[in-house]
Amino acid sequence: MDTALDSVLRPRSVAVVGASPRSAMAARLTDHLRGFSGPVYPINPRHREIGGLPCYPSLAALPGPVDLVLVLVPAAGVPAVVEAAGRAGAGAVVVLSSGFAETGESGRAAQEELVALARHHGVRVLGPNCQGLIHRPTGLTATFTAAASAASPADSGIAYVGQSGALGGSFLGLARDRGVGLTAWLSVGNQADVTATEAAGALLADPHVRVLACYLEELPDGAEWAALLDRAAGTGTRVAVLRSGRSATGRRAVASHTGAMVRAGTAFDLLTARSGAVRADDLDELLDASVALTAAARPAGGRIGVVTSSGGAGGLAADHAESAGLALPALAAPTRDRLRPLIPDFGSTANPVDVTAQVINDAGQLGAVCEAVADDADVDAVLVVLTTLGGRAAVEIAESVRAAAARTGKPYAVAWLYSHEEIAPAAAALRQVGIPVVGTTAAALRLLARLLPARLLPTDSGRPAATGAPRGTAPLLAAARTEAAGGALLDALGIARPRGALVTDPATAADAARELGEHVVLKVQSADLAHKSEVGGVRVGVPAGEAAATARAMLAAVTDAAPAAALDGVLVQELLPRGVELLVSVRGAEHGYPPLVTVGWGGTATELHRDVVSALGPVDPAGATALLRRLRCWPLLAGHRGRPGHDVPAAAAAVAALSSAGQALGPGAEVEINPLVVHRGGAVAADLVASGPPGATTSGTVRRRDRDEREEAVS
Amino acid sequence: MDTALDSVLRPRSVAVVGASPRSAMAARLTDHLRGFSGPVYPINPRHREIGGLPCYPSLAALPGPVDLVLVLVPAAGVPAVVEAAGRAGAGAVVVLSSGFAETGESGRAAQEELVALARHHGVRVLGPNCQGLIHRPTGLTATFTAAASAASPADSGIAYVGQSGALGGSFLGLARDRGVGLTAWLSVGNQADVTATEAAGALLADPHVRVLACYLEELPDGAEWAALLDRAAGTGTRVAVLRSGRSATGRRAVASHTGAMVRAGTAFDLLTARSGAVRADDLDELLDASVALTAAARPAGGRIGVVTSSGGAGGLAADHAESAGLALPALAAPTRDRLRPLIPDFGSTANPVDVTAQVINDAGQLGAVCEAVADDADVDAVLVVLTTLGGRAAVEIAESVRAAAARTGKPYAVAWLYSHEEIAPAAAALRQVGIPVVGTTAAALRLLARLLPARLLPTDSGRPAATGAPRGTAPLLAAARTEAAGGALLDALGIARPRGALVTDPATAADAARELGEHVVLKVQSADLAHKSEVGGVRVGVPAGEAAATARAMLAAVTDAAPAAALDGVLVQELLPRGVELLVSVRGAEHGYPPLVTVGWGGTATELHRDVVSALGPVDPAGATALLRRLRCWPLLAGHRGRPGHDVPAAAAAVAALSSAGQALGPGAEVEINPLVVHRGGAVAADLVASGPPGATTSGTVRRRDRDEREEAVS
Repeated sequence: MDTALDSVLRPRSVAVVGASPRSAMAARLTDHLRGFSGPVYPINPRHREIGGLPCYPSLAALPGPVDLVLVLVPAAGVPAVVEAAGRAGAGAVVVLSSGFAETGESGRAAQEELVALARHHGVRVLGPNCQGLIHRPTGLTATFTAAASAASPADSGIAYVGQSGALGGSFLGLARDRGVGLTAWLSVGNQADVTATEAAGALLADPHVRVLACYLEELPDGAEWAALLDRAAGTGTRVAVLRSGRSATGRRAVASHTGAMVRAGTAFDLLTARSGAVRADDLDELLDASVALTAAARPAGGRIGVVTSSGGAGGLAADHAESAGLALPALAAPTRDRLRPLIPDFGSTANPVDVTAQVINDAGQLGAVCEAVADDADVDAVLVVLTTLGGRAAVEIAESVRAAAARTGKPYAVAWLYSHEEIAPAAAALRQVGIPVVGTTAAALRLLARLLPARLLPTDSGRPAATGAPRGTAPLLAAARTEAAGGALLDALGIARPRGALVTDPATAADAARELGEHVVLKVQSADLAHKSEVGGVRVGVPAGEAAATARAMLAAVTDAAPAAALDGVLVQELLPRGVELLVSVRGAEHGYPPLVTVGWGGTATELHRDVVSALGPVDPAGATALLRRLRCWPLLAGHRGRPGHDVPAAAAAVAALSSAGQALGPGAEVEINPLVVHRGGAVAADLVASGPPGATTSGTVRRRDRDEREEAVS
Repeated sequence: MDTALDSVLRPRSVAVVGASPRSAMAARLTDHLRGFSGPVYPINPRHREIGGLPCYPSLAALPGPVDLVLVLVPAAGVPAVVEAAGRAGAGAVVVLSSGFAETGESGRAAQEELVALARHHGVRVLGPNCQGLIHRPTGLTATFTAAASAASPADSGIAYVGQSGALGGSFLGLARDRGVGLTAWLSVGNQADVTATEAAGALLADPHVRVLACYLEELPDGAEWAALLDRAAGTGTRVAVLRSGRSATGRRAVASHTGAMVRAGTAFDLLTARSGAVRADDLDELLDASVALTAAARPAGGRIGVVTSSGGAGGLAADHAESAGLALPALAAPTRDRLRPLIPDFGSTANPVDVTAQVINDAGQLGAVCEAVADDADVDAVLVVLTTLGGRAAVEIAESVRAAAARTGKPYAVAWLYSHEEIAPAAAALRQVGIPVVGTTAAALRLLARLLPARLLPTDSGRPAATGAPRGTAPLLAAARTEAAGGALLDALGIARPRGALVTDPATAADAARELGEHVVLKVQSADLAHKSEVGGVRVGVPAGEAAATARAMLAAVTDAAPAAALDGVLVQELLPRGVELLVSVRGAEHGYPPLVTVGWGGTATELHRDVVSALGPVDPAGATALLRRLRCWPLLAGHRGRPGHDVPAAAAAVAALSSAGQALGPGAEVEINPLVVHRGGAVAADLVASGPPGATTSGTVRRRDRDEREEAVS
């Protein structure tokens, strides 16, 4: 079995079944194959010659061995070709034909049979319904896409693998348009056999490939994706990925706040970011990011030194930097001294540095300015913003920037606000050395923001802890669907919970209360009450002395409002000190991704705050603290404006502890504490909800726990 | 005096002083003028002929009258030219020369003298340091910018006016690159005489101009800008504007929360949006928006029907729609029935509608699909997303889309993810009928979001009320810098404030307290204490019976902590019912803009909530309610999840009342209530801060009012 996909990427000979001079598609395919160094065999019983090449009636009739068979016949004819390919000793087939799983159920069945047949013959299948591939080191252009017809620019070291044929063609077209020669390009189609991940792995192993650009339509299996990212790290290959379908996967049907606010795909983003891979949001961003990744330098931080030929454009850059979460640092005095003689009086030595339109008269000066800015200790990356400079001047300016960039370890990017044609050769020259050239300042700043180190990205997870789930947690998790069992889980994790006692006789409420403090919280307990507070079932701040009477009154009120509810009694709980209410949750590993731990500004207004951040779990207390720091409510938690802070270490310990339980949760199962009340001397989990797919536990669908813990005191 | 700028836009003859065959710039200028229908007179004593045209030694030596003089001589020689132009009867000069105000103080002085001289001679001045102008109806290309050298595509009706020469050249170049012929193009340079606003006004009056695209670097005077927008509405001219310098203007030095969170320029954005003008964020977005505005249709809402040749691209479009605040509505069953016969089985009739790559075989089918989608009642705009379709097929597809768009009143946009060259003619054809063609799905959705009606924009202000400031408010505003005076202002506006009394003798605190309720709030009063709570100067929830003792203890504690502070006594205030804390503020009219009213989620965590929205004031209660609805905390205010709401009408009335005071505030002066406590039976202003530029009132810089009204009860 060809696991390295050698037959696909490095065939020594290629056959095209369904070749025809009458189909534009087939003709283009055969035409593209002219660059291939080995034999190309068109197969078509109706012709003796196609496109100047001898044409054969069948694979069995070939004069020599064949490694790779490209298949263009209608779907119904494909199995026969696969069988013939197997008998002819081919290692792989590329099924360009459509009409399989993408058409529905019968197509899916046909596809499965096809794969079984291929496997029986030891033949790998790329596709079906794919657009083929390009592998320049082998001189192989095995695709009919029109985007491949234009001459390829010099190899960039960038390899593309994608699930959408059309978008893959767009990517190839865009790359050529911008003077970027893709070293390899694979369209995996329906992924019946060779998946995007496997194809990506094969490309990683290719010594000519320095950057892997992936386009994914579905969430890949997390373990496979992590393994791929690890291999990329091992081969020193940079990765850029564009994933669509964020909105489609969107928010999951939810039993928890977390589910309502944390997108599916967050774990993918976190894993991706952690490995240093770059996430792109659109096709051209994927290309620009890939170009940037062919350079050695990555920005160490978000401080951008802008050099521009137009003050106006510099102003736009400053605006867009702010929007992108980047900064334009002030340049050091020595830097500005160095700049002063290089810049006309009516320019500016402050960031953004304005060299003015005079740059057209002295391209070399621009390079010197860029070098000075790059040398400033507070600059992490240089962005050159150019306007109406084209033709010969553009080429000289590009060379000046290229030379300057070669002298620093800091990355460069260029925003060139001018006609495509006028700047095409200049821009291509820059891209060839890993300096991305984009058409707007906004896109340039967005791109730089994508290239930031993981710890500065919004999705940064920090390093996950090495801790495991505490012993005995699993059964507690499974059973954590009642308040009592939830309590046992909290105890096992070492997370404090409110002290309290369940009383069945209201008269004993007073004794229970006195143990707990001057004021207590009373909660009617019943499996049949979804929202206790709405039926008078929760009272907060009841003086201990009034506990008995209040408990009696509550039971009466609840019985009145919900006569059918079976009441277990009244829970008498301590009144917690005031503090900051956090949401803390953990979601079990699913689709191969690690567990996800989420923290947020919690309480009853959780979904109004919209202040949540997630990380791959588990996290240790230091990681938990770092996560909490990213919340908008962090100053409230840690203390600000002269106010003392709350018990952050206790909060972090609780977050870390809960995150450790994630490893014992089933896929899609979730445990959420909201609120974790973080006061001055501790952190107490006032409520816990365990949820998950039906059937995950023996107790079935979970009753949503009442969140109305902290009702206004009845005044 | 030529106020209509006829001499600039419609000269009958043009002279070029400083023409020379040896300067590339001058040569280009003269060359560009060949298209002019009237006489063109190069002026240079050293030549008898330039570029095939007779050359004259001076303006006095011309064989006929001259209306417009283009000046290319060094700065020092410009005044003489202006004088000569005046004597020759020219109506205007365009000073392309640099070396004036942009170089510093002496240049500024030279510029002012130049304008005085020109005015003395009745000559208008465009520039100096500008790039000239283009006015195609007159056949006038009076600029040296290389971007003007290429042949102009057909007139679009779009006129550009901008302050940056370089960005103006970029805009012109981009427009030509994309097949958009600018009807007019003005670069106003230093605006020594003719400002951007005046130039814009002259273009509005031009019957050939349908869309005005403005690039502004500074905030224009609000009254002038509003007047311009009104004139545009009157002439039926659409306006698109790009304003840079948002970050530079950034956040103002602040004495209030409002200043910390509401950007300068918000009033500009609100005014712009209210008039239906479109705000762009980058140069290419300005062009794309302008193209869209040449069409009759604007989206009535944010529901986008996507038609695509690639499922993958459709997925990206769905993702980006969500990011842009737009939606992909489900199509009605009749729509999908209409689509089904038009779409291959492996496509999709659900939004995004996937016609698949087969569209290359039947462009007409695409048009029929688009029409069906446009006819769906839930679709406000159609976005067509295309991939690798170029050459002849692209032209046919573009025609099909164009024809479909002509049959509906709903706007279209196209995202074409392919090589620029391949699609240039097709894209140009679409742009010529007002269908913008952009290169990425993200940009397309962002563009559509910009075109939304004002009420759906994030900056919508709603209609301002016609109310005036209540009588007698002005002196109260000026004096509202002490708590007592602030109280008088609140009374005048009809905004409730906490009942209370100032006691100088702690013993009387008890009596005062008993009038106010079971529990009270005690606040030590002193002009010398910036933060009362930090020195024990605020106690909340004190039982009335303990008021005297507590007051005594507080005075002692404060005296201890701040012995030098002069104490006025203790304010005994009612304890307000719990409610939602809002920020409500009004900022006086400045720079010609209306007053700005801001509401937000307030209280001590105001700056952590980051939940504010502004509107142009004044607003009436209905407008105030609409504003409050836009806050994230609206559900908290209005009631959600079974919880009763708070007194929204009282809150809205307070917002409206405070907004009315804005008209009596001085420029940059601000009155902020935080918190306005909105409870179940009213809204009470618990604190008020008046601030403004030093010297605005007789009491000087304002002491920042202590916000620690609602300290945790001492437990």
